[in-house]
Amino acid sequence: YHPGGNNMSEFFQVLTPQEAWQRLELHISDIGRTETVSAQDTLGRVTAMDILSPEDLPPFPRSAMDGYAVRAEDTHGASEGLPAYVQLVGEVPMGRPTRLRISPEQAALIHTGGVVPRGANAVVMVENTRRVDDFTIELTRSVAQGENVVQPGEDIRHREMLLAKGHRVRPQDIGGLLALGISEVTVFQKPIVAIISTGDELVHPEAKLSQGQVRDINTYTSLALTIEAGGIPLSIGIIPDNYKALREAAQQSLEKADAVVISAGSSVSTRDLTADVINSLGKPGVLVHGVSLKPGKPTIIALANNKPMFGLAGNPVSAMITYDLFVGPAVNRLGGSTGMPIRQEVIAQLTRSIPSATGREDYVAVKLLQKDGETWAEPVFGKSNLIFTLVRADGLARIPLDKEGIEMGEAVVVRVF
Amino acid sequence: YHPGGNNMSEFFQVLTPQEAWQRLELHISDIGRTETVSAQDTLGRVTAMDILSPEDLPPFPRSAMDGYAVRAEDTHGASEGLPAYVQLVGEVPMGRPTRLRISPEQAALIHTGGVVPRGANAVVMVENTRRVDDFTIELTRSVAQGENVVQPGEDIRHREMLLAKGHRVRPQDIGGLLALGISEVTVFQKPIVAIISTGDELVHPEAKLSQGQVRDINTYTSLALTIEAGGIPLSIGIIPDNYKALREAAQQSLEKADAVVISAGSSVSTRDLTADVINSLGKPGVLVHGVSLKPGKPTIIALANNKPMFGLAGNPVSAMITYDLFVGPAVNRLGGSTGMPIRQEVIAQLTRSIPSATGREDYVAVKLLQKDGETWAEPVFGKSNLIFTLVRADGLARIPLDKEGIEMGEAVVVRVF
Repeated sequence: YHPGGNNMSEFFQVLTPQEAWQRLELHISDIGRTETVSAQDTLGRVTAMDILSPEDLPPFPRSAMDGYAVRAEDTHGASEGLPAYVQLVGEVPMGRPTRLRISPEQAALIHTGGVVPRGANAVVMVENTRRVDDFTIELTRSVAQGENVVQPGEDIRHREMLLAKGHRVRPQDIGGLLALGISEVTVFQKPIVAIISTGDELVHPEAKLSQGQVRDINTYTSLALTIEAGGIPLSIGIIPDNYKALREAAQQSLEKADAVVISAGSSVSTRDLTADVINSLGKPGVLVHGVSLKPGKPTIIALANNKPMFGLAGNPVSAMITYDLFVGPAVNRLGGSTGMPIRQEVIAQLTRSIPSATGREDYVAVKLLQKDGETWAEPVFGKSNLIFTLVRADGLARIPLDKEGIEMGEAVVVRVF
Repeated sequence: YHPGGNNMSEFFQVLTPQEAWQRLELHISDIGRTETVSAQDTLGRVTAMDILSPEDLPPFPRSAMDGYAVRAEDTHGASEGLPAYVQLVGEVPMGRPTRLRISPEQAALIHTGGVVPRGANAVVMVENTRRVDDFTIELTRSVAQGENVVQPGEDIRHREMLLAKGHRVRPQDIGGLLALGISEVTVFQKPIVAIISTGDELVHPEAKLSQGQVRDINTYTSLALTIEAGGIPLSIGIIPDNYKALREAAQQSLEKADAVVISAGSSVSTRDLTADVINSLGKPGVLVHGVSLKPGKPTIIALANNKPMFGLAGNPVSAMITYDLFVGPAVNRLGGSTGMPIRQEVIAQLTRSIPSATGREDYVAVKLLQKDGETWAEPVFGKSNLIFTLVRADGLARIPLDKEGIEMGEAVVVRVF
């Protein structure tokens, strides 16, 4: 495929990574499809509506300590030297209602989690008490009203926001839901991401290789990154490097999926082919063609039929970085999340200087090392477009747009990858 | 359950979190059980043996650019002012072997990823060339031998280590495996973690609640954390708060699972029961009873039948923190990983001072805020043992052992949670 005359990319200004993302972000909202799942199966899913608390938690005043339920008034002034004395009237059973009622100068034995009985308004910790005889407790410390008691509704109140729409559920959120007896939750379905690889040199990884052929790996790295981003990958496979075949595959993908990722072949002509195919599929077509990013400059970001489409450069490192910077956040947003995807970042000092060009964001593969309690980033030797550069690395050091490189010993942000 | 006389915990010294982990770590190795899975399904799995490269990658000298394959000697001294001229003898096809052979002063059109033909030893980028006529190319820049060429084996060499045993597979590792045609990988099976909750106040989350009852949530937060840690949770459910029942449940769990987590009831007597049950199940029994940690002080770490057992305090925040600090790393290790589990940490400034006691590691729930490009940690209001303190938080700020608190504006490490 040899585009005649003017190359598409000439019409596009190269954008910064942030500008490129913002241009797409405007157009993306959640896919709208939802499903109801058991609360205990919601880990990593995104809530599709606000969830309010159906009740006060705890529903009863609960002891936060092992000790004695008392009236705070009866403990005033109590100390080691001048203890107060109360009469033991019983023990609060765990997990059952209690009929106990605490009158002045009375106390009940209570365990952590027990119902504070009527009349009592505080708990004296067992460490601050002594049992004088079967009926008498000595208190060596005073307590304020409410001390060591969890009040009804103190954890969460009836109708208070439990989880807002667009929240990605964490283990503690599952705990919060079940603490309130909420056993089912409406979440967004996971967005479907079609993944196409194109390039005449590509073959299926299990095929026997002839000279000049390269095993397709971008399909599989994109597949794994889609799962990490909370999407469902739909692998379309390797499509021949011609307009008709690629257009047909891309069009069918647009019908089945919520987003389409095309990992182009390595050559410039294949990348231009991707842009032409995308532009033929619907308005507005290509939004971004070229990002001030290394590797990843020839990235295409587009919108057709209201669905995001991406053209990633063929080299696997470039494809992974641009997936992580643009496709991942888009999948996250299609899946209804109002936050950004989490990618661990650490601050490390560079073990040697790295040059860069101003006006370009560079990502350099590094290994992380611990030396004298400090974290160092050691650049991985090797051409930046080789997959094993990334396999040998612990992450990618980011050299910001406005830097002409980073000196040895200088701090750098490393995206753990 | 009221243990008579001496409390077990008196025999144990309270350890720092690091000492507690080290005491257990000595005793844990991988579970040994392995399985073979398709390479594309290995995301997050742990390799059970060293994997070496079966071949050189790339297997042929590959062009890293679009341009012309030449002999570097023929370009020496070429510049805009004094170009060199070479004769075009053909185009290298993509994905097929080429019969082209480059003789002195000859060149072949080549695309990124194409096989550098015999005789050629460098590629001149198309930007540094001009087509004079159908047979003549003008070169306006010289290239060194090997320039813009990926040499055979430059990505990875035959027999070089591809992935070491104990490596948790990332997207790029899947790419590396498939780039070499490795379609199946032997990984460790995921360790099975039995989860028991005990406490007479606990009921199943879907049960109708009577006064004094509390819905069991530690089972479900532990379940989710087990999945995050790479294990398979085996939910045993709620076991009555007595020695016989808990011992029977724990013993059966030890038979079925690789690790056992008992989330004790809230009261001290239930926690001592857990220690007694664990000690009855095999040597060496309880290794750690009490950690200088808040929340999480009454944590029990044990070993019975060579399997790690954990007694987590009943309050859900304490249970989650101690799971994260001790159970997660143990599950990771049982699953064969030689690294530590990844939990994102960020550095943030505190919006207000937090007191702490020296000699104790404190975890305080915080929300993360961005202000003027800086990350701030705002402590979440509320008692530290309430699940919604954690639901409302973005993470837990760590106050180190040797600190007496952290001042407003001081930097703190936040575990994103």
